[in-house]
Amino acid sequence: MTSELIISLDAMGGDHAPEIVIEGASIARERVPNLQFIIYGDETQIVPLLTRYPILKNCCEVRHTDKTISANEKPSRALRRGRDSSMGQAIQSVKDGQAHAAVLAGNTGAQMALAKFILRTMPGIDRPALASLIPTSRGESVMLDLGANVECDKNNLVQFAIMGAAFARTVLGVIKPTVAILNVGVEELKGSDAIKEADRMLKEVNIAMDYKGFTEGNGIGAGEVDVVVTDGFTGNVAIKTVEGTAKMIASLLKLSLKESLMSKIGALFAGSSLMSLKNHLDPNNHNGAVFMGLNGLVIKSHGGASSEGFASAIGVAIDMAENDLAGKISRDLENLNSSVDGLGVIQAQNDGKVVEMTIKEQK
Amino acid sequence: MTSELIISLDAMGGDHAPEIVIEGASIARERVPNLQFIIYGDETQIVPLLTRYPILKNCCEVRHTDKTISANEKPSRALRRGRDSSMGQAIQSVKDGQAHAAVLAGNTGAQMALAKFILRTMPGIDRPALASLIPTSRGESVMLDLGANVECDKNNLVQFAIMGAAFARTVLGVIKPTVAILNVGVEELKGSDAIKEADRMLKEVNIAMDYKGFTEGNGIGAGEVDVVVTDGFTGNVAIKTVEGTAKMIASLLKLSLKESLMSKIGALFAGSSLMSLKNHLDPNNHNGAVFMGLNGLVIKSHGGASSEGFASAIGVAIDMAENDLAGKISRDLENLNSSVDGLGVIQAQNDGKVVEMTIKEQK
Repeated sequence: MTSELIISLDAMGGDHAPEIVIEGASIARERVPNLQFIIYGDETQIVPLLTRYPILKNCCEVRHTDKTISANEKPSRALRRGRDSSMGQAIQSVKDGQAHAAVLAGNTGAQMALAKFILRTMPGIDRPALASLIPTSRGESVMLDLGANVECDKNNLVQFAIMGAAFARTVLGVIKPTVAILNVGVEELKGSDAIKEADRMLKEVNIAMDYKGFTEGNGIGAGEVDVVVTDGFTGNVAIKTVEGTAKMIASLLKLSLKESLMSKIGALFAGSSLMSLKNHLDPNNHNGAVFMGLNGLVIKSHGGASSEGFASAIGVAIDMAENDLAGKISRDLENLNSSVDGLGVIQAQNDGKVVEMTIKEQK
Repeated sequence: MTSELIISLDAMGGDHAPEIVIEGASIARERVPNLQFIIYGDETQIVPLLTRYPILKNCCEVRHTDKTISANEKPSRALRRGRDSSMGQAIQSVKDGQAHAAVLAGNTGAQMALAKFILRTMPGIDRPALASLIPTSRGESVMLDLGANVECDKNNLVQFAIMGAAFARTVLGVIKPTVAILNVGVEELKGSDAIKEADRMLKEVNIAMDYKGFTEGNGIGAGEVDVVVTDGFTGNVAIKTVEGTAKMIASLLKLSLKESLMSKIGALFAGSSLMSLKNHLDPNNHNGAVFMGLNGLVIKSHGGASSEGFASAIGVAIDMAENDLAGKISRDLENLNSSVDGLGVIQAQNDGKVVEMTIKEQK
């Protein structure tokens, strides 16, 4: 690979493909000049679109595929017939070292199945997790798993915590992120056994995070911690509840600002302030969920994202690729394993550097 | 009992007890003239407060208790020593037929344990569930379980659906409420086995609800259905996520309306419209969660509720008591049992009337 950053795209995924994919790539390219793209999909649709974006056209390669994965295609079927689809090929290009990351929109289940099958999980990770940024009153936090695994055991949760902390260090730039497990109360006696066990394990291990114990649903919006860890069922419900609540309030706000002449005048004056709030809450500006724990970077964009939203997802891919996410996770997994299994390994942390002394047992 | 409606109160529960309990009772009494109260707690604190509310004073009886349950007391300990506490006595008065319902603030775990122990679950209900109204863009919906049961099986979920539908018919006044199970997708192949099985059962049975299948986290705020059914872990996270997101947006909105002279002027003009939105989202106006499925009515108020909030919880108690919630649930349970177990029972619904034909097996 050259010093350029190469991102592969599935041009055919998402509700408004390939238009928003191409437009999104063009927006991302304007921001990051060393960006290159490999674009998979139907060239008869892609090539004419590229004429609108001459700069993008000069830094991308279009690779034609006949097959695309539809939005409703079952993961099992995608796995059987989808490896030579635009989605499968975009992931394969990461596996082959041709691209630093793949950005895909649309069918999440198919993405997950193909990404897991083609890239496999990292050593030490049992199951990948879907992680994303969410808006909070303090800025942004990371939440995972957002739906890759409906049921999770204690080891999954501990691994999610490690991966989430690596995400926060990479994208939010926090050196030692605060991490908590989502629970129905903050007391140690609450929650399922998996949660209680994971809590105990995270309190004992020595990894690059500031583990805070439990947080509750209202702690998400408050931004209580940098990383919220949960199983894929709860995480999926929670992130969609955040989105749904924000949408509900926005629609009620809109209605109530239209209800009288006074409120209409008010809305005119407050317009630009309300717009900046709207931007902070707009899912497009937090777009780009990462399949964490794979041997390669795959970023999922919302199927309904705008071109700005798709560009945000490409932005997440760039952050991840440039900041050695995988390396961060591997190092923490090593630390985890030596703290948990490693009778005879003593670790000390000094100014961020981990000093390790291995004491071998004498026979 | 007389034609008066009698509500028993634990005056000592909640963050600002006994003040807000007494003030809340006074507000509720102003709205509903046939209301009477039995107030349990420390009379040296309660009696002086009552002098401020002469109307309330004339329609309540104060019953002194030495013991109160603290906010942090473990459920097991509350069960051992709490039966003669103000909380325990308030529940006992429902059991003894002295009060139509008890309204309690504070320690949810202790309330649950004592209510379950003293009142026992209704025939046909394996576990009680905590249900409450939540604000949506269409008005209000019912959600349950909000935290009584961390893990739930298919039967629990089916029973929750029945209880939630009865809640909606009683409090929202919907004749045939729409009901859905909260899931990570709307397709039938998504979710845990318990959810899939409960979905299948609810599709088959003939009860007074319009069962819609699955809904997702964003369906809550959209008000997609009248009743959202889920396990206590997910429900607790979801309702707290709604609250947390609303709080986050309110604080960001407040900040953004202060950021410039223009936005300050706008806020002045739009003030009353914004206030009515604030009221719709204020948890105090949706206060009053019901422990469903017990042989008696127990309503939980938020520990941090205002006196207005506490009055809302009393309002829920009144709705429930006046509209025969328990009768509605019992009838649906009978229908459920005859549809599920009843080989040989055929049901047909005609203009809302259930026609039942029992076909006995011949020997």
